[in-house]
Amino acid sequence: MSLIHRLTSQSAQFDAELRTLLAYEASEDESIEHACAQILHRIQHEGDTALLDYTQRFDRLTVEQASALEIPKAELLAALESLPADQRKALEQAAERVRRYHEHQRSETWTYTEPDGTVLGQQVTPLDRVGLYVPGGKAAYPSSVLMNAIPAKVAGVPELIMVTPTPDGVRNPIVLAAAALGGVDRVFTIGGAQAVGALAYGTDTIPAVDKIVGPGNAYVAAAKRRVFGVVGIDMIAGPSEILIISDGSAPADWVAMDLFSQAEHDELAQAILLCPDADFLDQVEAAIERLLPTMPRADIIRRSLSGRGALIHVRDLDEACKISNHIAPEHLEVSTRNAQDLLSKIRHAGAIFLGPYSSESLGDYCAGPNHVLPTARTARFSSPLGVYDFQKRSSIIQVSESGAQTLGPIAATLAQGEGLYAHAASAQFRLNQS
Amino acid sequence: MSLIHRLTSQSAQFDAELRTLLAYEASEDESIEHACAQILHRIQHEGDTALLDYTQRFDRLTVEQASALEIPKAELLAALESLPADQRKALEQAAERVRRYHEHQRSETWTYTEPDGTVLGQQVTPLDRVGLYVPGGKAAYPSSVLMNAIPAKVAGVPELIMVTPTPDGVRNPIVLAAAALGGVDRVFTIGGAQAVGALAYGTDTIPAVDKIVGPGNAYVAAAKRRVFGVVGIDMIAGPSEILIISDGSAPADWVAMDLFSQAEHDELAQAILLCPDADFLDQVEAAIERLLPTMPRADIIRRSLSGRGALIHVRDLDEACKISNHIAPEHLEVSTRNAQDLLSKIRHAGAIFLGPYSSESLGDYCAGPNHVLPTARTARFSSPLGVYDFQKRSSIIQVSESGAQTLGPIAATLAQGEGLYAHAASAQFRLNQS
Repeated sequence: MSLIHRLTSQSAQFDAELRTLLAYEASEDESIEHACAQILHRIQHEGDTALLDYTQRFDRLTVEQASALEIPKAELLAALESLPADQRKALEQAAERVRRYHEHQRSETWTYTEPDGTVLGQQVTPLDRVGLYVPGGKAAYPSSVLMNAIPAKVAGVPELIMVTPTPDGVRNPIVLAAAALGGVDRVFTIGGAQAVGALAYGTDTIPAVDKIVGPGNAYVAAAKRRVFGVVGIDMIAGPSEILIISDGSAPADWVAMDLFSQAEHDELAQAILLCPDADFLDQVEAAIERLLPTMPRADIIRRSLSGRGALIHVRDLDEACKISNHIAPEHLEVSTRNAQDLLSKIRHAGAIFLGPYSSESLGDYCAGPNHVLPTARTARFSSPLGVYDFQKRSSIIQVSESGAQTLGPIAATLAQGEGLYAHAASAQFRLNQS
Repeated sequence: MSLIHRLTSQSAQFDAELRTLLAYEASEDESIEHACAQILHRIQHEGDTALLDYTQRFDRLTVEQASALEIPKAELLAALESLPADQRKALEQAAERVRRYHEHQRSETWTYTEPDGTVLGQQVTPLDRVGLYVPGGKAAYPSSVLMNAIPAKVAGVPELIMVTPTPDGVRNPIVLAAAALGGVDRVFTIGGAQAVGALAYGTDTIPAVDKIVGPGNAYVAAAKRRVFGVVGIDMIAGPSEILIISDGSAPADWVAMDLFSQAEHDELAQAILLCPDADFLDQVEAAIERLLPTMPRADIIRRSLSGRGALIHVRDLDEACKISNHIAPEHLEVSTRNAQDLLSKIRHAGAIFLGPYSSESLGDYCAGPNHVLPTARTARFSSPLGVYDFQKRSSIIQVSESGAQTLGPIAATLAQGEGLYAHAASAQFRLNQS
């Protein structure tokens, strides 16, 4: 098995090879679907009783009453106080930068008035209550808590409810510290499909929310899909991806390590490099070979790179942009001289990192933009998580008496054409008799 | 069976009665799910062959080759030319007003530069290609073509592909005229799950799109749910709803007719009136009784009102706003003196119609705002269809050399805390050795 695939866009087989490389189908597991349906049904109809039952069964956490599932705010603050100074400072600096960036995303209510006095516009309001799912165990990333909580708070969401499983009662202090910093209002130690159900339907203890965001395992993802419509959900993420467009000007070691930083997430993560300079591709391959043994997560990286990674020789940077637009990567690094010049050629990507100093890892933690990004080519039609995901809009229509005289006949004509006579009459009733 | 339910918020049973009134569960039909899965599978793997087969079978439309499924642009323009003058003028005026309103919704790319030269921002781009589903037969509403097509075009979508079934080859000239006015680029006479599949996966004849919007029957809805992820989709709409908050100041006939204009859509449509004036509720009930026999769609209206409609006596307008926020209606008419004063109390509604002259029917056709609105309480977390549904965002991150020195240590500290060592190394590689 090779270290990493080597492809060239000049090959007659390139299109087929690229298709094979990108192929990824999220498997639907019937047993997970079935279990989730049952869990959600019980939570909806039995509330706290079912929630306590599942929490005992799956997390081996037994409490006398459901209210004991809540972590008091004082404990969140204590977790923050107890962090090592450098970690706390890093978390605070990241939170501050993320907040500052997201302030730019806030939408505001707008209206305009027409000459006849008719007012049209859009009222922008935050969601009332949002649920934030935070995985337990190894996938518990404090940075994810910040990236999900801060946009909700910047949007003005008054109540942000976090749920996170604590198997055997073990709590993760960095995650609780991040919750305190991110402005989370309440935290409950529940997880899995039962936590998603509790947030969607509400129980005596867990308040029903309007939207659920945050990553989770296959059960959480399946449960989120099922409650969609009852509440809003964020996207269901696939494996993480990076695509690097390079002109060979940055050190090969930097590029290799950036590929690693994606590959180390899990073996299905995808790291691809496009470069018109074949020698540079050789240098990167050599760097991969040299640096890989030094990595604590070398096994995962090796499996990811050999399975789904590729170094691709392209004709030129224009072709690189075209291939990138086809792939619509979650993370795109444009590691070239004058990277800015290529920006206008990039149509689809979750986040665009310009220039050699913009490593994806800086964006993952603290540059400011969100690290929750569209995967699996969905950047063609969707966007990073943002403040806009926690605001919604209502059209405002205030027709003046004079405006009703202008609009009435138009509406009546069109309504009659569609056979909707009450619509027509409703418009005609507003016409002044003269 | 009563003409329409009468409730009062002062009743001890009110909460339960309201819950019963609002209860609506979209049924999942196993046979539809199964049929859709099969249709989508065949379209994905057999392309045009399967498409021609299904079109022949379901629409009794036989063509020699798939290219004959396309309606040439000249025919769209001819349809527009052939409209009666008043209908054409009404359609043009509506299109112009809808376009003008939606221009206000366009988002623009933004960036900001930090003191160390780091640039952060968000690039806003239109989707490349969008599919618009337009139902055939009676539910073929030209106004819906405009409401879906215009925001896509205002967003800058270069290719807008419309599909619409033409059973027995019968084409609807008003729908084709609306397509011409709305700026639709190509039209194909296909429908059902097979049309959704063709748009999602592409065939030799039908280009694959990035997002599919527009209403459809249960098969279309099920197919859209299934292809979500491969492409984006708009919301799946439930039955239409109106809620009117009245202080009794508008004519009872106007209010009754506005309730009819919702009820005439279908028997599951919901029309509710909240008013603190019991006498006015009596007047509206009398108006309903008097006006109903004059309506061409009286049967549908009667079934809708008696099944899902209600006149609700409330304590005051404040309570009316609270109940309205709970219901989060698709359409909300605030038919009061100084309606503007209540606006700040309205948190959730698809569209808010202020004042007695703002009948929903004016908004449905020509006021300007979109008539594709969130139903079934989803206005708590979602918005009217808009230009923002046809644009997406990519984060821009251009870290300067100096910025990398500030951000690197923060990212490295947090990455190490999460056990992601390649992330840490990738940030550290950018630190200047000094």
